[in-house]
Amino acid sequence: MTASSSRSGRAWAHVGQPFTPPAPRPDGTHHDFIVIGAGRMGSVLTAALAAHAPATRLLLIEEGGLPNEDGDTILAPGLWTTAHLPADRHAAAQASRALIETFGAPTPRLHVSLHAHATPGSVPTRDALRDHPDTLALLDPARLPHATTDPHALTYRPGTLALNAAQAAVRAGADLLLNTRAVPQPGGAVRAERLTVTNTHQVVTHETHLLRARHVIVAGGAAGPALAEQHLGVHTRHGRAYRQSPHLNVPSGPDSPTLHHAGLTLVPRHGAYTLHPRVHHRDPHGYRPTGGHLTGVPTGLRRETLEDLVALMEDLPVLATSQLHLGRSLADIPGAWTALPYGDPLHAPLFEALDPHVTLLLGGPHADTLGPQVAQALAQQLAGR
Amino acid sequence: MTASSSRSGRAWAHVGQPFTPPAPRPDGTHHDFIVIGAGRMGSVLTAALAAHAPATRLLLIEEGGLPNEDGDTILAPGLWTTAHLPADRHAAAQASRALIETFGAPTPRLHVSLHAHATPGSVPTRDALRDHPDTLALLDPARLPHATTDPHALTYRPGTLALNAAQAAVRAGADLLLNTRAVPQPGGAVRAERLTVTNTHQVVTHETHLLRARHVIVAGGAAGPALAEQHLGVHTRHGRAYRQSPHLNVPSGPDSPTLHHAGLTLVPRHGAYTLHPRVHHRDPHGYRPTGGHLTGVPTGLRRETLEDLVALMEDLPVLATSQLHLGRSLADIPGAWTALPYGDPLHAPLFEALDPHVTLLLGGPHADTLGPQVAQALAQQLAGR
Repeated sequence: MTASSSRSGRAWAHVGQPFTPPAPRPDGTHHDFIVIGAGRMGSVLTAALAAHAPATRLLLIEEGGLPNEDGDTILAPGLWTTAHLPADRHAAAQASRALIETFGAPTPRLHVSLHAHATPGSVPTRDALRDHPDTLALLDPARLPHATTDPHALTYRPGTLALNAAQAAVRAGADLLLNTRAVPQPGGAVRAERLTVTNTHQVVTHETHLLRARHVIVAGGAAGPALAEQHLGVHTRHGRAYRQSPHLNVPSGPDSPTLHHAGLTLVPRHGAYTLHPRVHHRDPHGYRPTGGHLTGVPTGLRRETLEDLVALMEDLPVLATSQLHLGRSLADIPGAWTALPYGDPLHAPLFEALDPHVTLLLGGPHADTLGPQVAQALAQQLAGR
Repeated sequence: MTASSSRSGRAWAHVGQPFTPPAPRPDGTHHDFIVIGAGRMGSVLTAALAAHAPATRLLLIEEGGLPNEDGDTILAPGLWTTAHLPADRHAAAQASRALIETFGAPTPRLHVSLHAHATPGSVPTRDALRDHPDTLALLDPARLPHATTDPHALTYRPGTLALNAAQAAVRAGADLLLNTRAVPQPGGAVRAERLTVTNTHQVVTHETHLLRARHVIVAGGAAGPALAEQHLGVHTRHGRAYRQSPHLNVPSGPDSPTLHHAGLTLVPRHGAYTLHPRVHHRDPHGYRPTGGHLTGVPTGLRRETLEDLVALMEDLPVLATSQLHLGRSLADIPGAWTALPYGDPLHAPLFEALDPHVTLLLGGPHADTLGPQVAQALAQQLAGR
């Protein structure tokens, strides 16, 4: 990533590129805004700050690469839909959609929710999937005879959204510091540790900078609340959950709809399906994910997710086949920690002040549909200061 | 415990008392019913079986002593109340009350639920606690001005209930095998391992017996579903939660009411209070409880419970004082695993068939008020076979 115009910011990807903070201004700050975390929330925030506050010095810091391989941004379903969304959130969803269309390279894709009983607006499942016989074959239409559809739904890759938003921010003047661990300090400073890998594959700190900013935004995903608590001493009531995305080896095409049933979403991806199970509730502090056992057989899926899939096998017979990749240990199944605002899987993304100079930005399970708007709203608020 | 009448059963407390199973009958069984677990559910079941099926051979097996020190029976609140109970469960609660009065040595004790807003039947908190100024001092009546009361509530010690019910069962002819680990086998057998302690304090198996019964009841508390899965290959959807009961060092008297607010119950006990926090949801498979940290300070309370107590400190200012014992590590705070039928903290106790010869009996968070009736109902069903 290099400068593409005179207004472009700079990007540092590795420690071979010497990083020098800008000279501090009279108030001691190096930057106006430092954003910790280049997931989709932090990246869209930075792009929106660059747009709404173009004369400011922006720095986006990311512990990994872009997009980060470890966070929820890579593994989230990437499904924008107003199905199941309360009416008072539709405006936020539409604002998010505009940002997804700008940065996320979305694909229009029919979204189909399945039901055992007729509900308002439902049609026969066979009619809803008339043009998609391969999709119909995944389920038992005698058990799930009713369907509601969202013809305006989109799928997109949240990692692409993060990448494009971060690049747009850099083109608009923001600086980007990759492979750098950043922790907030009280009062608007950030301790930034540039990381490198030794020839014995240890990740070590190459150099540390103390950077001061008018305002710091912690957008560290599920790790954000812990950063607030450990480094600012600010206790929050947010939680997190470990979410896994097992692979279903059934062919899908560019027009295949997404399917939703009882909290489980099947998203066509890479010519097959990725399964996104329901998040029931926060995981307790200190929980380390482990693979499950079902009547003695080890799997890579955590027990709770395994139970949910087993419970749906009659409705979705494809789950009872060997096409569903269960793995044998945790490492076999993609998974990530997802932030849960207030520990509540139904809560919308949010931001909140941690101190007068630090704000926490949290996505979570509804970031696909609502997150970009929340990031933009925070940018507008910060730009107005 | 020794025989007190010609109909009395026998009790074996340690391996120094030689145990010989009764001679098998023509169908190969040694017993009619074997109950695994002498918590309150298993003990009341055995007492009820002895009453409803007096001519049968009963064996109650317990891994520890009586009452068991490790299970939920010792740490449950021991609060019988119809406050917060749906109307369709009142009959079961009354039937349980009769059993608690028979076995549990209950104490009548006013139960007071606190509210921020007026609710049907509520009275001013100051009026509800007019005779209990020490209790009123625990809360902020400006924040919790409304109260509903249950003047018919009881408190009792679930461990006493288990002990008395087990002793009544023995007096009525049941055999009791303590310090014996029992696992169910398919088809109505039990592998029983009599445990002993070496002089290096290791718990070892002294001898193993395979005992056959017409019917086996697994009443192993939170461990019951795991026994079903590991030894019978029967998958259940039941869960469990680790519940802690911190100590509040504020004086209470024999007439002090129990207090309930936002899921937290304060139960007068031993001249002080025991706190019983809300169970929010199941803990994930593989979770090991750990003490929490709150802005860096280690405590013996798990994080989730700590957060709940912090959230209630304004309503109940006594929680913000050093009278609340937070401990420094998990071992400092009494805690136990509680069964959650169907993983649902609101679910009533239940029994269900695991195979034609084995039944699972589960208590859980509502066993105080509803458990004895469920155990009795299972006894009546089994006696009618």
